[in-house]
Amino acid sequence: MSKFWSPFVKNLVPYVPGEQPKLAKLVKLNTNENPYGPSPKALAAMQTELNDNLRLYPDPNSDLLKQAVAKYYGVQGNQVFLGNGSDEVLAHIFHGLLQHDKPLLFPDISYSFYPVYCGLYGITFDAVALDEQFQINPADYAKPNGGIIFPNPNAPTGCLLALDAVEQILKASPDSVVVVDEAYIDFGGETAITLVDRYPNLLVTQTLSKSRSLAGLRVGLAVGHPDLIEALERIKNSFNSYPLDRLAIVGAAAAFEDREYFDKTCRLVIESREKVIAQLEAKGFEVLPSAANFIFARHPKHDAAGLAAKLREQGVIVRHFKQERIAQFLRISIGTPEQNQALIDGLGDL
Amino acid sequence: MSKFWSPFVKNLVPYVPGEQPKLAKLVKLNTNENPYGPSPKALAAMQTELNDNLRLYPDPNSDLLKQAVAKYYGVQGNQVFLGNGSDEVLAHIFHGLLQHDKPLLFPDISYSFYPVYCGLYGITFDAVALDEQFQINPADYAKPNGGIIFPNPNAPTGCLLALDAVEQILKASPDSVVVVDEAYIDFGGETAITLVDRYPNLLVTQTLSKSRSLAGLRVGLAVGHPDLIEALERIKNSFNSYPLDRLAIVGAAAAFEDREYFDKTCRLVIESREKVIAQLEAKGFEVLPSAANFIFARHPKHDAAGLAAKLREQGVIVRHFKQERIAQFLRISIGTPEQNQALIDGLGDL
Repeated sequence: MSKFWSPFVKNLVPYVPGEQPKLAKLVKLNTNENPYGPSPKALAAMQTELNDNLRLYPDPNSDLLKQAVAKYYGVQGNQVFLGNGSDEVLAHIFHGLLQHDKPLLFPDISYSFYPVYCGLYGITFDAVALDEQFQINPADYAKPNGGIIFPNPNAPTGCLLALDAVEQILKASPDSVVVVDEAYIDFGGETAITLVDRYPNLLVTQTLSKSRSLAGLRVGLAVGHPDLIEALERIKNSFNSYPLDRLAIVGAAAAFEDREYFDKTCRLVIESREKVIAQLEAKGFEVLPSAANFIFARHPKHDAAGLAAKLREQGVIVRHFKQERIAQFLRISIGTPEQNQALIDGLGDL
Repeated sequence: MSKFWSPFVKNLVPYVPGEQPKLAKLVKLNTNENPYGPSPKALAAMQTELNDNLRLYPDPNSDLLKQAVAKYYGVQGNQVFLGNGSDEVLAHIFHGLLQHDKPLLFPDISYSFYPVYCGLYGITFDAVALDEQFQINPADYAKPNGGIIFPNPNAPTGCLLALDAVEQILKASPDSVVVVDEAYIDFGGETAITLVDRYPNLLVTQTLSKSRSLAGLRVGLAVGHPDLIEALERIKNSFNSYPLDRLAIVGAAAAFEDREYFDKTCRLVIESREKVIAQLEAKGFEVLPSAANFIFARHPKHDAAGLAAKLREQGVIVRHFKQERIAQFLRISIGTPEQNQALIDGLGDL
């Protein structure tokens, strides 16, 4: 470490995202991207914005997109917060709403960025074990805490927590912010945004990187009580006035307005997922129930790291986490029918 | 304040950016945007990237752009850090390199985001007064400090510090990071990037929002010793893996490669600036020497807020800061010849 670093930097353990290989020919089932492109209306909206006006700053409040999100979910503009990907939104949430004396709670098997944010902002946390079936048990969160966060469906398991179980968690911790990270909700779950008007401690985050096929554009959002949103706006306006560029604002707004394309592509992914699950089960895999655009599976007779290496040799990349409890699982994104077939072929006879 | 907020949020005083009016007809000389559009090659590069590949995450390291910047400045890729606008780059610098026991030093008249970052990260600071001519005196920074930052040319004064004076500051504080914020350097200064190989404590930041006409795209950078860059990469990778979107990476890289367009548009802005200065001086204004794409001027007989209001009535927006020492100044961006004429006409006879 250098003498110039702020002292805490020495102990930072950054997040490691899934590989973004530069070889175009690989079948990339490792970062849960959507196999279908973004809405043609989103591309068209960006096209009209791709001009000399890029010399001008964007609207710092991204009002056009805020209104599109508010309209889509039937909430007010001051209940919506926007950021440069849901990772940035989550970072501001950890900083502005989860830095308290009591520990933050999140599942032991969960989005591996959560403990990284805790390191960045000096937040203590308590990892709550999933049950034996890798499910969240709401009762486990009914204990003193400075906040609660969990993905729903959970990642990398893909397992969904029903809305009444989410409510159980909200009711048990009325003095804490409960963040429901819905990156994958559109592939089989029901959003908790319908609950924000009843629970002032609820904050729901979403991303346009998955169901809206805009991972390359970097847009995420949070919806909750205006008091929670105000904390995030204060942080954002003390960090970077303009996190969303002019193209992202119009592209993301158009994506929210094209419900037909969204519904169709989500349906295709869900249909493919069910087919892949059946094919993997036929090969002897145990597959956790998935409400996401990926599945989490293990084979009782084959080592997960070995399977991942074998697939890689066939040009198929999946994600393997070197973490206790899940070291024998593979997380496999749902691709196009052709990509999914390459996965099945790549596994061969087991 | 809400009980849900992290305690420090209560005392945050966010930065207020210059107004981004939604009326297209206004002559906007308030946020130092470039009056000319971005390089046509930058627009063309983004055009080729505007397709279904937006479903995929960008390269988290933005290598294409890092290499373009490294090549442009004759440095190595590991000496370059990139972010979502230089505001994000600065935020990470404050967090990762300027959080020390001794106070951070910056000029009393300077970029008003600096004290905001200090509030966000709990950094104590000491605002060092500019001299009577609104110049930075290097000797004033030769005192115990936990870091030094200043814009060069300074904002909102526009005044340039010569490179030998920058070196004087670097030499006097070898154990502190010295950040030279060169948002406006291309309009009349000489970059300190040529010094980074001699001063391991030097970090230079730049933006593509001014001389490269891409404020709407959100790209900024820092160049310095690899040890300093490593701290920033750790912070970035603990905050948001992908701050630059696919369009921004290719657009910004192409902008750096189009030196001819860059030289031409910078020259036009500089020529306009000299003309505007002469016109304002003819009206009795006192104009500080400017090496930026804006000028900072006061009139001995007319109140600055009154002049700004009068211009606003004529459809011309300039920036007025309600801050001691500079309350009688206006900061006026250099526009196209037509916009500059609207400014001169709007002021009328004084």
